[in-house]
Amino acid sequence: MNNPIPAELVALLERSNRILCISHINPDGDAYGSLLGMVWLLRTLGKQATPAMTDPLLSEFEFLPGATEIVDARHVGADYDLVICLDASSPDRMGDVFQPELHAALPLAVIDHHVTNTYFGDVNWVDPSCAATAQMLTYLVEALGAPTTGAIAECLLTGIITDTLSFRTSNTTPEVLEAAMRLQRAGADLSMIVQRTLNRMPFSALQLWSLVLPSVQLEDGVLWGVVTRDQLRDAGQPNDDSKLNSIFATIIEADISAVFTEKIGKNGQPAVECSFRAKPGFNVGDLAFAFGGGGHPPASGCTLEGPTDQVVARVVAALKETRRRQALDLD
Amino acid sequence: MNNPIPAELVALLERSNRILCISHINPDGDAYGSLLGMVWLLRTLGKQATPAMTDPLLSEFEFLPGATEIVDARHVGADYDLVICLDASSPDRMGDVFQPELHAALPLAVIDHHVTNTYFGDVNWVDPSCAATAQMLTYLVEALGAPTTGAIAECLLTGIITDTLSFRTSNTTPEVLEAAMRLQRAGADLSMIVQRTLNRMPFSALQLWSLVLPSVQLEDGVLWGVVTRDQLRDAGQPNDDSKLNSIFATIIEADISAVFTEKIGKNGQPAVECSFRAKPGFNVGDLAFAFGGGGHPPASGCTLEGPTDQVVARVVAALKETRRRQALDLD
Repeated sequence: MNNPIPAELVALLERSNRILCISHINPDGDAYGSLLGMVWLLRTLGKQATPAMTDPLLSEFEFLPGATEIVDARHVGADYDLVICLDASSPDRMGDVFQPELHAALPLAVIDHHVTNTYFGDVNWVDPSCAATAQMLTYLVEALGAPTTGAIAECLLTGIITDTLSFRTSNTTPEVLEAAMRLQRAGADLSMIVQRTLNRMPFSALQLWSLVLPSVQLEDGVLWGVVTRDQLRDAGQPNDDSKLNSIFATIIEADISAVFTEKIGKNGQPAVECSFRAKPGFNVGDLAFAFGGGGHPPASGCTLEGPTDQVVARVVAALKETRRRQALDLD
Repeated sequence: MNNPIPAELVALLERSNRILCISHINPDGDAYGSLLGMVWLLRTLGKQATPAMTDPLLSEFEFLPGATEIVDARHVGADYDLVICLDASSPDRMGDVFQPELHAALPLAVIDHHVTNTYFGDVNWVDPSCAATAQMLTYLVEALGAPTTGAIAECLLTGIITDTLSFRTSNTTPEVLEAAMRLQRAGADLSMIVQRTLNRMPFSALQLWSLVLPSVQLEDGVLWGVVTRDQLRDAGQPNDDSKLNSIFATIIEADISAVFTEKIGKNGQPAVECSFRAKPGFNVGDLAFAFGGGGHPPASGCTLEGPTDQVVARVVAALKETRRRQALDLD
């Protein structure tokens, strides 16, 4: 932990009793883990706590204690004296579950580990040195003198495991392993969490891969594949390119990889969602930004309008040029 | 650690000065990590230590300090006063690098974490509660009062990361995370090790998948795929079915999965190598054993002679029956 817990945050938590906890749209394991971990921490301290999320519950997180209590925008209500926002870097990430007419007058506490956080709360605790918001909450549990119950441990370890892909990301510091070890000792079942979250893919995804892989290309250290709308329909698979790109990113001969997925753009015109990965020493963040997207040096993305073949040709040329330049810098 | 370090082992290490360290055939990351970690530990204590292995050096472990010093059977020599065998469960696993005419008269110390270890040394330290032999060596470093140098830390963390697939296996106890944390704090680069060992697959493997995936089948909770000799040749890929079966094992709809790989058997007749995986609650160990193979409840294998279609039909029927029976037991 680089940034200490603000004393105002501790004071705010201590004097509040009916607390609305919100996490972000398009939720991942740290959204669920930090949200529900915070709820169980507050309940352990004798407070009322309600978890809320804009999106419907994802099946892979149903096992988390409290998951079925998560309310959506229609049921969120107004009877609170504090709102805590977890793992969201900006207010739009809360989605419609934060309703200004009901909640704007309440104090808002922001707890997040994203370096891009805009500090939109009345109190903000942001620590990018942590690999997950759930990791930050392990320190909050301690600071508040609460016991780490089994429910808290299971939720927080889920956030850590999913955000680090089971301790594989470069921000997996010794402090991450230490936090995970303590949560395991408090009763969280690491192997079960890995099995239910990371080691989990529908058969339709494998069928989609079998359609996409024959056209994958490798040229000049750049590997790419195109997922067409026909393939998505034939596989009966809502696009999930993250796992495919995670496989691409392991290919020895490629320094940079990309998955291109055909979409219908906002105006009904054809568009292509581009998802990039770079090996250590290479950077796809700037390129995505130049194309109007965003992300980090190792993983980024953008969406471009136009026919698939034209978009792919243009972006692959840029990726090859990026890779060539960066390979020279490495020498 | 469930089984304490034998006092005879410590005494033997203390009085020996020219030590031959051997690991197992078909080496994995723990074979390399525990072998080289032991060598650096002994050198830190002021002793001469030589690492030896039957197989040629695998490219993904070239980065390990001391990897290029590993000698093979032709260069192993005889001028030693102790042999230490690491991560090998039985003497045949040492391969031809252990030469009875040269080494049988020397004291042999066995250090291993496999539950199947046959205790073939003069001194045996076997602890199946450890997820890797490298984890056991972290305790030995401490017991011998040696510092954990950067070289020791890098080798031992490599053994732990590869044997647990980066902390994903069910034997990843809090003690495993604690050992890994200490090795990281001693200077080992976790993210680099993950990148060089686990996140690493040749493009030819992806090309093989594109040939194999279209024929993958899912019936009655059993998922299987067949890798033919033609496909292996077309992809220019020596068979590496472990990654493909790791993907199969994540498919939500499958409780049991199998990869069948065509081989030429010992007598020149067709044969099929069968590799099985089971979800928690299911067991493929007994079935592999019944077919003359071996393994554990979650992962096992066997090799059967006969034409591919006949072998696959017979084994898939047995897998479905196994799955049906075990699913009933779970209810």
